[in-house]
Amino acid sequence: MTARYDIAALKARLGGIRSEDNPALVKQKSRDFFWYSPVLKRKLDHVTADIIVLPTSEAEVLEVLTAAHALGIPVTPRGTGTGNYGQAMPLSGGVLLDLSGFNKVKAIAPGRYVAEPGAIMARIDDETRRHSRQELRLHPSTYQTASIGGFIAGGSGGVGSIKWGGLRDWGNIIALKVATMEASPRILELSGEDLHKVAHAYGTNGIITEVEMPLAPAYDWVDVILGFGSLRAATEFANELGEQDGLALKNLAVVAAPAPHDYFLRHRKFLPRDSHLVIVMAADFAVDSLLAYAKRFRGAALLMRSDTLFPEEAKGLPPAYELGWNHTTLRALRVDPAITYLQVLYPFPNQVELVEAIHARFGDEVLCHLEFVRFDGKITCFGLPLVRFTTEERLEEIMAIHEAMGAPIFNPHRYTLEEGGMKQTDEAQLAFKRQADPQGLLNPGKMIAWEDPAYDYASGKTFLFRSLSEAGVG
Amino acid sequence: MTARYDIAALKARLGGIRSEDNPALVKQKSRDFFWYSPVLKRKLDHVTADIIVLPTSEAEVLEVLTAAHALGIPVTPRGTGTGNYGQAMPLSGGVLLDLSGFNKVKAIAPGRYVAEPGAIMARIDDETRRHSRQELRLHPSTYQTASIGGFIAGGSGGVGSIKWGGLRDWGNIIALKVATMEASPRILELSGEDLHKVAHAYGTNGIITEVEMPLAPAYDWVDVILGFGSLRAATEFANELGEQDGLALKNLAVVAAPAPHDYFLRHRKFLPRDSHLVIVMAADFAVDSLLAYAKRFRGAALLMRSDTLFPEEAKGLPPAYELGWNHTTLRALRVDPAITYLQVLYPFPNQVELVEAIHARFGDEVLCHLEFVRFDGKITCFGLPLVRFTTEERLEEIMAIHEAMGAPIFNPHRYTLEEGGMKQTDEAQLAFKRQADPQGLLNPGKMIAWEDPAYDYASGKTFLFRSLSEAGVG
Repeated sequence: MTARYDIAALKARLGGIRSEDNPALVKQKSRDFFWYSPVLKRKLDHVTADIIVLPTSEAEVLEVLTAAHALGIPVTPRGTGTGNYGQAMPLSGGVLLDLSGFNKVKAIAPGRYVAEPGAIMARIDDETRRHSRQELRLHPSTYQTASIGGFIAGGSGGVGSIKWGGLRDWGNIIALKVATMEASPRILELSGEDLHKVAHAYGTNGIITEVEMPLAPAYDWVDVILGFGSLRAATEFANELGEQDGLALKNLAVVAAPAPHDYFLRHRKFLPRDSHLVIVMAADFAVDSLLAYAKRFRGAALLMRSDTLFPEEAKGLPPAYELGWNHTTLRALRVDPAITYLQVLYPFPNQVELVEAIHARFGDEVLCHLEFVRFDGKITCFGLPLVRFTTEERLEEIMAIHEAMGAPIFNPHRYTLEEGGMKQTDEAQLAFKRQADPQGLLNPGKMIAWEDPAYDYASGKTFLFRSLSEAGVG
Repeated sequence: MTARYDIAALKARLGGIRSEDNPALVKQKSRDFFWYSPVLKRKLDHVTADIIVLPTSEAEVLEVLTAAHALGIPVTPRGTGTGNYGQAMPLSGGVLLDLSGFNKVKAIAPGRYVAEPGAIMARIDDETRRHSRQELRLHPSTYQTASIGGFIAGGSGGVGSIKWGGLRDWGNIIALKVATMEASPRILELSGEDLHKVAHAYGTNGIITEVEMPLAPAYDWVDVILGFGSLRAATEFANELGEQDGLALKNLAVVAAPAPHDYFLRHRKFLPRDSHLVIVMAADFAVDSLLAYAKRFRGAALLMRSDTLFPEEAKGLPPAYELGWNHTTLRALRVDPAITYLQVLYPFPNQVELVEAIHARFGDEVLCHLEFVRFDGKITCFGLPLVRFTTEERLEEIMAIHEAMGAPIFNPHRYTLEEGGMKQTDEAQLAFKRQADPQGLLNPGKMIAWEDPAYDYASGKTFLFRSLSEAGVG
């Protein structure tokens, strides 16, 4: 693969910018968490860049892009590589642009902050909490290691979505700066409508060099775990709890028995094997109200609340957000490597019935894991069910059954934007790509509509980040 | 009326507690904003207490209650008398307990504060903003003059309800202390389930002596006024804007033409007479996104944004929250004394169609004013329509038509809890009243079920604060 590009010439042009071309290290850094999917594991295991370049400033990013453009070398940006869709994997080799050292928090104000793309989310929160008791609105379960730029380019929501919706929603990103891939790269300042071009685009249409994001108040969050005798009861409770507008919640998940007992090893002592869990993060001042509310539900058992544990009980327990979202999958995978997962939307208003019907259909093959969120102004849930993987054909069949039953799938077993189903490509998106990356050198192979002009992007599928042209109303 | 009670004996027992029995001053302080309703004006205009007593501490409240209980004198509590339902008017005379001097903020912490009941809401915010850039989640449009205790005892929601729902919702009150009306009054500490007993009970079952309430982050709020060519377009836009989970909004109202131009005199220069308004309070960092979102709606015209006004343009403009809720009614009343109002719920999911159908039915007799809120986890709207009053019979008819068309009324032309329709009385509520006020001396005449044991409180009506026994689920 190296023969394709003049890496030596590139190195000569990099000046003082740090780089790494030891093949073992390059291969290691060319991988993200694609191995959550047995399908992506088969397809992407061989992928590697030719060189890692590690700029630490906007000026250095522009230098790297200028050099790579001049030499026709592809550039795939990466934060810390915690994504699951192969989004940071360089399909055509070339430069892996590791932005983890370009990571300063530049400004903090009431309700917002400005940071460089490589800033780790938990480190941003350290600074914003210290500054003014504020914190990120949204973060993935990989909060401790993931970068904010990677989250915007490849994530969609997570912890906080029960309050704020997702990255696709107006107001959850304030402004972005992106560098273009041209002979003389420009910095574009994007806000409002234009943000939708770059969010969840895997870095295919610009390299994020600065983010301005909203902040939420930072409270002392308490983990509360409630147990229920049936999945239906847990789902109903979580749904109604999510609809309590006055309760300050940060995350709200359901995990069906026996997955919690079997996979949440450090919490196991609290978890009867037959308990279906509702796992809540609530502000300290909301816990009384939450528990009073739970008392109204027959059969709701309080299994754990983190604020009343003795220190020896609390020791070594991961925070509730590391039991949720893709950490649920991760914990299951660690115990049973045959587990994989799906990404499902159970659309309002039929989510409770749909969850029950779908899981009744699959039994033990698909274990229920729900994350409740605000979605278009209503409470509903996404599913990240744990699937006992047998064959790729069966996996496809399981997804087809979900869709046939009314639950759209965002396929985490595909590495292209369109097949992943979160990002709808359209003419506006392609026009922007033509401006920002006319040679198609940014993360090649991830946007089908760019690679294949005959691709029909105007499908009737449900996309999480909707088409730019379709989003218009009125 | 004075002959009924031994006011001289009461005064003798008051010690150093300030009181006032000049009849003109007593009559003036015995009034709230009941005159918004022509019906209440007719029924309550004569009402007066015998004496005003002004305790400034819990100890003084207990002294007054002990003395009044010993002498069998009724006690009606009052904050600053900004309620609209006659809730603070002493139907049986006796003591008007003016709590406006019992008003200290006692503690502020992340997400919550503790205050005495007479604290004015805007003054609480002065302290919480200075302390840690926090502010009240919810307040009425009378924020500058109304007390927090009065709001809890007689209000329901208001500015902030688009984000947090109402006072009826779990988590919007953390804890209350109330003094009972007994020979030796006790202080009850209420939290969780028990809060529902005292919220919106007009002080009929205890005198609030301390409140613990949640706080929201205090941002720089920008007033944005958008104009639309039809009520339908304004309502649709507001509804969809309310469903944007990522936008930090504090209030979201619709006022139909020509009311804004005719009644919002200081804003008139911005308001074409045929514009139907959407009036938004948005955090400064959300305005860009809000305006980008509005651009997608054909026909949305930006009429004013407060953050870009020249100082001479901004001078004298009231804040947007003083164009909303009952201040809309107040501004209309000042121009046209024949105006009164209703309180309507347009239930999700048919709110947009229902607003259109009801206003088409009434034409100019009922001018549309909507306040969008979160309600049971969904976005919908309350109406406080401006009604051209003719007769009480016609007013009843207008309300009956609303209910027949599917829009429940919370009748602001009644002074009892049950007829007002916000608070449902039930056996649990009555049992609590028997404990807290066995002689029925607190704000007598406001709870029908107490006065008339034959009253059937188990009606099928929609109540905002639901029955304590009915609220159980699961």
